[in-house]
Amino acid sequence: MLIQDLGSHTAAQVEYEGSLYRQVALRISELIEHGTLRPGERVPSVRKCSEQQKVSIATVMQAYRLLESRGIIEARPQSGYYVRRQRWTPPPEPAMTKPARRAVQVQVSDLILQVVKAGRDPDLIRLGATLPPAELFPLRELNRIAASVGRRSPITANSFDAPPGNHALRVQIARRAMEAGCMLAPDDIITTIGATEALNLCLRAVAKPGDVIAIESPTFFGILQIIESLGMRVCEIPTFPRHGVCLDELESRLKCCRIKACVFTPNFSNPLGSCMPDEKKQRLVKMLTKYKIPLIEDDIYGNLSFDGSRPRAAKAFDEEGWVMLCDSFTKTLSPGSRVGWAAPGRFRARVEFLKFVNTCATPTMPQMAIAEFLQNGGYDHHLRKMRRFYACQMERMSEAVSRYFPPGTGMTRPTGGMCLWVELAPEVDALALYEEALAAKITIAPGPVFSASRKFQNFIRLNCGNPWSDSIENAIRTLGKLVAARKNKEVAPARQNGRLQVA
Amino acid sequence: MLIQDLGSHTAAQVEYEGSLYRQVALRISELIEHGTLRPGERVPSVRKCSEQQKVSIATVMQAYRLLESRGIIEARPQSGYYVRRQRWTPPPEPAMTKPARRAVQVQVSDLILQVVKAGRDPDLIRLGATLPPAELFPLRELNRIAASVGRRSPITANSFDAPPGNHALRVQIARRAMEAGCMLAPDDIITTIGATEALNLCLRAVAKPGDVIAIESPTFFGILQIIESLGMRVCEIPTFPRHGVCLDELESRLKCCRIKACVFTPNFSNPLGSCMPDEKKQRLVKMLTKYKIPLIEDDIYGNLSFDGSRPRAAKAFDEEGWVMLCDSFTKTLSPGSRVGWAAPGRFRARVEFLKFVNTCATPTMPQMAIAEFLQNGGYDHHLRKMRRFYACQMERMSEAVSRYFPPGTGMTRPTGGMCLWVELAPEVDALALYEEALAAKITIAPGPVFSASRKFQNFIRLNCGNPWSDSIENAIRTLGKLVAARKNKEVAPARQNGRLQVA
Repeated sequence: MLIQDLGSHTAAQVEYEGSLYRQVALRISELIEHGTLRPGERVPSVRKCSEQQKVSIATVMQAYRLLESRGIIEARPQSGYYVRRQRWTPPPEPAMTKPARRAVQVQVSDLILQVVKAGRDPDLIRLGATLPPAELFPLRELNRIAASVGRRSPITANSFDAPPGNHALRVQIARRAMEAGCMLAPDDIITTIGATEALNLCLRAVAKPGDVIAIESPTFFGILQIIESLGMRVCEIPTFPRHGVCLDELESRLKCCRIKACVFTPNFSNPLGSCMPDEKKQRLVKMLTKYKIPLIEDDIYGNLSFDGSRPRAAKAFDEEGWVMLCDSFTKTLSPGSRVGWAAPGRFRARVEFLKFVNTCATPTMPQMAIAEFLQNGGYDHHLRKMRRFYACQMERMSEAVSRYFPPGTGMTRPTGGMCLWVELAPEVDALALYEEALAAKITIAPGPVFSASRKFQNFIRLNCGNPWSDSIENAIRTLGKLVAARKNKEVAPARQNGRLQVA
Repeated sequence: MLIQDLGSHTAAQVEYEGSLYRQVALRISELIEHGTLRPGERVPSVRKCSEQQKVSIATVMQAYRLLESRGIIEARPQSGYYVRRQRWTPPPEPAMTKPARRAVQVQVSDLILQVVKAGRDPDLIRLGATLPPAELFPLRELNRIAASVGRRSPITANSFDAPPGNHALRVQIARRAMEAGCMLAPDDIITTIGATEALNLCLRAVAKPGDVIAIESPTFFGILQIIESLGMRVCEIPTFPRHGVCLDELESRLKCCRIKACVFTPNFSNPLGSCMPDEKKQRLVKMLTKYKIPLIEDDIYGNLSFDGSRPRAAKAFDEEGWVMLCDSFTKTLSPGSRVGWAAPGRFRARVEFLKFVNTCATPTMPQMAIAEFLQNGGYDHHLRKMRRFYACQMERMSEAVSRYFPPGTGMTRPTGGMCLWVELAPEVDALALYEEALAAKITIAPGPVFSASRKFQNFIRLNCGNPWSDSIENAIRTLGKLVAARKNKEVAPARQNGRLQVA
C-alpha cells in the first residue's frame, strides 16, 4: 500500500519537505490516488512534466525514479512512464465457507427486502445493489431499434407472443450460447421475465414445497427469496471463493440429504465472484447426471469476465439434459426490458407450461428489439466495453478497500462480475455496520442476507458496478473508518443471547 | 328464425316463385342474411330499390311489407325501413350450474394446453381462444408514443422499475378505477405481467398448496391452470348464467369447506358472460368480509359492456381490504405489452414481495407507453369503439348459432365480453365435437376445460372477438352440422366406462 504512504498528506509532507523532486513525486502520486491518472495510463512525459511543474528535467527524472522505486509507476522502454497496475498488496482471500450440514427453512426475506429497498434510494451511495449504471448500456440504439420495429411491424410488436417466446430472439440466443460452449436449438429456449422468472419456473418444474435445494454458500439473496417464497428448504454447500462449490462436500450431501435440485452460479457467482474451472464444471455435471439431480445454472454474469474470455457454462457439458440454464439481458443490455430466458433441457415442456401459467407470455416488443440488436452485431463490441469497465471498477474498488479498511480485512479476487466480497475482522458485526453505513448515507449488502442460516456475520458485499467517483471513494473511506471504530470499540454488541438481532 | 325460413333457397324459392314482389323480398332478405345489410342499418329506400331492381314502386312496397310482417325489417316514421335488430328467436338460456360440493384437485392442464395450442394455429378458424383481433387496438398510436418516450427518456425507459411499478401508470390506473367505483391510491396498485401474474401473486399471497379455493362453475381455464400449478384445490360454486355465483350456495360452502379464498369474475365472466348486479356484489363482499375470506376479483372484461355503461367492480364495495382486484390492458389496449395490475387491499405488502420474487419488475417501456396513452385521453374513445364492435360480433355470433345449430341448443345472453357459452343437447359430447371441428380446421373450447371435475361435457365456448366474415359464418354452419350429426348418430361414444376419454 505504497500510494497510501505517499499520499497521506500528514506523513508524506514531512518526508518530502525541503526537496523539490519529492514535491513533484507527491503531486504525481496524488493525481494517481484521485484517479486523474489511472492504472495502465501513461504519466506525463519528463519534458511535459518539467514544463507543467516548472521544474528542471533532472528534478522530474529524480521524482519519477522515486515513484518507480516505490512501485507506483513503471518505466517502459521507448515509451515512457506508466501507472503500475498492481500497485497495492491485496488483503488475504477468505477461506472456503463452512455452512451447516442440515437442510434449513429459508426466512431472510424481511432483512433482504429492507436491504433491497435501501439499495434503491437515489440519495444514498449505492454499494448494496448490483444494478449496473444506465450510461453503460446502448440505450439510444435500443430505443432507435424499438421505434423502428414499431413502425415496421405495428401489429406483430403488440401481438401476444405465446411461450416459448419470440422466435427471432431465440435464434439469436441459441447462436450466442455457442460462445458459452452450448449447442442449443431455438426450440430448446423459453423466454422469460428476466433470469428471476427463469429460476422460479425451473425450480417449480423440478421441486415441490418442502423439498431440499442445494445452493452455494454464500448465495445471491434473490435465490434465497425465490426458494423461501416457494416453501422449499436449502442445503448450503461449502464453497471456495475462487472455484465455486466444493464437489466432494456436494457429493456427500447428495448421498444423505435427499437433495431435489441444485441452484448454482458457476460463472462469477454473486457475492463471491467465484468461477468454476472447466474440468470442475464437467465433473459437477457428470455427478449430478449420475444422481439424476437437475442443476439450475444461473449464468447472468457469464459474459462479464474481466479478461475478455467467455467462460463455458456448465450446460456445455450437459449430455442428458439435466442442466437448466438461466440467463438474461438485464445485466448486459437493458435492465428495464426484463428479457431473460431458460434452456431447461429435459424439463422443457414443464417449464413452458409453467411459463404460460405464471405470466402467460413475455412482452413482445422488448424481445423484438433485443433480437434485432443481437442480429445487427453490436453486442460483442458492447460487451467488450462493459468488461473493460467492470475490470477497471473492480480494480479500483479492491484497491480502495485495501487502502481504507483496517488490517485484518480480507477480500475476494473476482475475475468477472461486479461483486466484491469483503471479510471483516471476526468481531465486526456486518448488520450493525449496515445500519451505521445507512446513517452515513451509504448502502452495503451485509453478509447474513446471503445465507439461509444468517451466517457471514462479519462479511459485506460491495457493488463495483458504479463509475468510480469521489463520492464512492469517500464512501469507502467512511466505511473503513466505521469498520475500524467497530473493531476497536466493542465486541459485536448486536450478538446478544447468542442470536443475531436484526434491526 | 324467420330469416332462415326466407333465406333457405329451397323452401323460400317455392314460396316466392311466380310473384315479383316475393322475388324482391327474397333478394333483400339474402342481402341481410349475408351481412351486406346489417341489423339497425337502413335498407334501400323504396325509390332506390325500384331503380336498382327495375321493378315498380308498388312492387317494392309490397315486398317491404312482406319483410316487415315477417319481422325482418321495420318501418320508422319519416325515415324509411331498417333491418330489425332482434330478428331471431334465441334458444333458451342454460340453467344454474350444479357442481359437486366437495373440494377437488385440479388436473385439466393437458387438455387445456392442447386446446390453447390449437387456438393459436393461424391456419384454423379460431373460435377457441379469446384473443382480440389486432386491428381493434390503437397500435400505431401506442407505437408512436413508445418511440417518443424512448427518444425523450432513453435512460428511464430502459431502467429497472422496481415494484410496485411505474408511478405515472399507477396514477392513471387509480384515476380510471373510479369509473368502476373504486377509490384507489397509486400506492394501492402493483403493476404485473398481465392479469395472469396478478392472479398468481394474489393466490400465493393468501393460500398455500393444498388449500381450497372457491371458483365459479364454469370458470376460465387459465384460473384452473394457475390453481393446479400452485397445488391448490378448488370448490366449484353453482353459478347463474346471468348474475354469477349463487351466494346462498357460496355461504353454505364457506361454512363447511374451509375455503381459503375466492377467485371470481363478477363482470362478464369467462365463459358464461354473467354480470353480477351491484346489490349482489355488495352482498358478496359483505359476506366474505364477515368470514374474513379474500376475494380475488378478475375484472379484465369489466370495460367491455355492450351498452357502454361500466359496471362497478366488487372492489367498489370493499371497506376492509378483503378484495384483491386484478386487471390488465391486454384485452383492451395491447395484448403484446402484457401490462396488468393488482390492487390487493390488505395483502398489498405480501403481493409486492411476491412480485419482486416472481419476476423482479414489470418491463418499463410498455408501462410508460400505456401511461402516456391513458393520460392523453384517447382511451375512452377507443373503449367505445371496442364495445360497439363486441356488441355487434356477439349479436352476429348468437344469431348464427341460433340459425345453424339444431333445436335443443341453448346459449347465454352476455351483456359484455367476448364469450358465448353454448349448451348442446345432452347426448352431444363436446370433446368429440372439438376433435371433429379441429379436423374441419375450426377450433372451439370444449366445456370440460372450464371445470376442475371435467363437467360441461355438452357445452362449448365460442369466441366472438373476431371480425365477422364468411369463413366464420361457414365455420358456425359446419359446427351446426357436426352437432346435428352427433346428435342423431350416436350417444356420446367418447364416454365409455363412465369416464371421459381425452384424445
